[in-house]
Amino acid sequence: MKTLPPNLPPQGGGIYFGFPQQELSTAKVLNLLRENQGSCISGEELSARMGVSRTAVWKQIHQLEAAGYQVEAIPHRGYRLLSTPDRLLPDEIRAGLQTRVLGQQVICFESTGSTNDLALELAAQGAQEGTLIAAENQTRGRGRRERTWISKAGANLLFSLILRPPWIAEQAPLITLMLAVAVAEGIRRETGLLARIKWPNDVLIKDAKVAGILTEMRAQTDAIEYVVCGIGINVNAAPAGALRQPTSSLSKLLGKPLLRLSLLRRILYEAEQLYFKARHNGPRSVLETGQNLSCLQGTQVLIQLANQEHLEGMIIGMDDYGALLLRLESGVTRRITSGEVSLVRPEG
Amino acid sequence: MKTLPPNLPPQGGGIYFGFPQQELSTAKVLNLLRENQGSCISGEELSARMGVSRTAVWKQIHQLEAAGYQVEAIPHRGYRLLSTPDRLLPDEIRAGLQTRVLGQQVICFESTGSTNDLALELAAQGAQEGTLIAAENQTRGRGRRERTWISKAGANLLFSLILRPPWIAEQAPLITLMLAVAVAEGIRRETGLLARIKWPNDVLIKDAKVAGILTEMRAQTDAIEYVVCGIGINVNAAPAGALRQPTSSLSKLLGKPLLRLSLLRRILYEAEQLYFKARHNGPRSVLETGQNLSCLQGTQVLIQLANQEHLEGMIIGMDDYGALLLRLESGVTRRITSGEVSLVRPEG
Repeated sequence: MKTLPPNLPPQGGGIYFGFPQQELSTAKVLNLLRENQGSCISGEELSARMGVSRTAVWKQIHQLEAAGYQVEAIPHRGYRLLSTPDRLLPDEIRAGLQTRVLGQQVICFESTGSTNDLALELAAQGAQEGTLIAAENQTRGRGRRERTWISKAGANLLFSLILRPPWIAEQAPLITLMLAVAVAEGIRRETGLLARIKWPNDVLIKDAKVAGILTEMRAQTDAIEYVVCGIGINVNAAPAGALRQPTSSLSKLLGKPLLRLSLLRRILYEAEQLYFKARHNGPRSVLETGQNLSCLQGTQVLIQLANQEHLEGMIIGMDDYGALLLRLESGVTRRITSGEVSLVRPEG
Repeated sequence: MKTLPPNLPPQGGGIYFGFPQQELSTAKVLNLLRENQGSCISGEELSARMGVSRTAVWKQIHQLEAAGYQVEAIPHRGYRLLSTPDRLLPDEIRAGLQTRVLGQQVICFESTGSTNDLALELAAQGAQEGTLIAAENQTRGRGRRERTWISKAGANLLFSLILRPPWIAEQAPLITLMLAVAVAEGIRRETGLLARIKWPNDVLIKDAKVAGILTEMRAQTDAIEYVVCGIGINVNAAPAGALRQPTSSLSKLLGKPLLRLSLLRRILYEAEQLYFKARHNGPRSVLETGQNLSCLQGTQVLIQLANQEHLEGMIIGMDDYGALLLRLESGVTRRITSGEVSLVRPEG
């Protein structure tokens, strides 16, 4: 059985499921410490401003330490926040987050089955647009076409976003593309690494997969009710073992470990910018940026369709719905809505 | 709160929620009476074959009568089934049903919020393909674009089907079209009335709407997980009051009341034939029949798009995904995936 929050937190709320339990009162002491970051705040002041005993303050600081926060206790002066953990905690995700919608509602899990499964359930219950579900670990991580998504616990980013775009089901691939662009842009801005998009849902760096996106929706044929985008990014660990394609992690490519939180916040910011622009001016800018970042654009590819048919040709772009346009050798252009694409390398 | 069956019945099972409660043992006595239709079966034999007391037999026959079955009790000879009710009871729907998948699993309600809501929940829980949810009455009947679906309790057909086609989300409009064809064909075969399809989801007879289809799905962008098709047919009553468009009922057009069960079984049969054919040979036959039955084909129309843009032109067909093809006066062909279509009448 999965642990599902029975009710969503109010606007701006955050829930953390796991060990150690982060309570609302812990968030309060954390905020006060943050306000005074660099300098001390006395136990007396904390106790007064929180309206609890000094013993209660001490207990909550102990809980913060258990969650990975470094808090210095200086006799006769008070407490000082030395460092915050790079963990997927609602308060840490939201601290410094520059968005208005995406990630304003956060639910985090130490471990869950699949953040997409949870997001789909929450969306069906009416969760608001932008709700973020993140987890340190997934026990039933899913990929496209019933594949699994493997990720080392605590090392990477695993999260899902609930969106309610006023679009038709046929436009859902644009959401995947939008998130792929946001991930690639976020990686570039945070690390300088040039990430590219492999249609329909992968993000690659130098031919190695570093991220994947799984878009699921509930829709009428001419109106999306909600979309859930699950995003997995190999930040500090790439999955081991025999895989379908070359895979890497950002830390491996950079040669050093990477903080996950600022990458997550950057991706949420990029995604929101793209989303607002697409909602107001249509998806053209998503398509243009997506095409620029596509590692398939202008290349010779082999595509295996769902019916096992194989097509070879050159990718000449995408249409308004995010479908791939393949020019066959005959000169005919085929619209590709689903398939496995592999690059054809020139021989020799 | 809606009443949701906690578990689905086993293969071939049927559940009836409402008053009077139809129990499994009632189904047993009904089957025995049906086997002997026209002749009598003694209370003793019924009691022996059912393994219950004669008082229990009598009670169950009483329950059948309360559900609308006419059972004759002839002293010293036994019981005889005189007539079955035209009610949406699992046993009545399945009696004489010539399908292998559609309607083999049946859940019926005297009244429910919306059969589509229930079907979506059951599908998420893993309900098998073909599961039929029917109701005599809906308290929150829905149509396309958050419209309501109004239907007189007990007079019409209201049902939803769960399908799991191995298609992509973009092909979902084909499912709506397939069901529209099945409804139009079912009506024609049962009543002789010539029903036509108005894209995307209405069935009309002589310009009056007699049925509507609401297709909802859960999907990844390149794979439908499940589709739920809700179908409402004005069999013996048309909704009263001011409506968006002319509306009628089959009984009004025929001048006599119509039995609902045989129409439902016929539609399930037609839908299954189309569905099997489309799964094995692709959707071409659905598209061809749909185009033949379309009241828009070759006509001049005005289309209001979701962005309030208006387009005028001639409908020249449908593409492989069930999208409407509109030829504008400029000669350019536009692909229409969503919109409100109205016929332009020649002036004078």
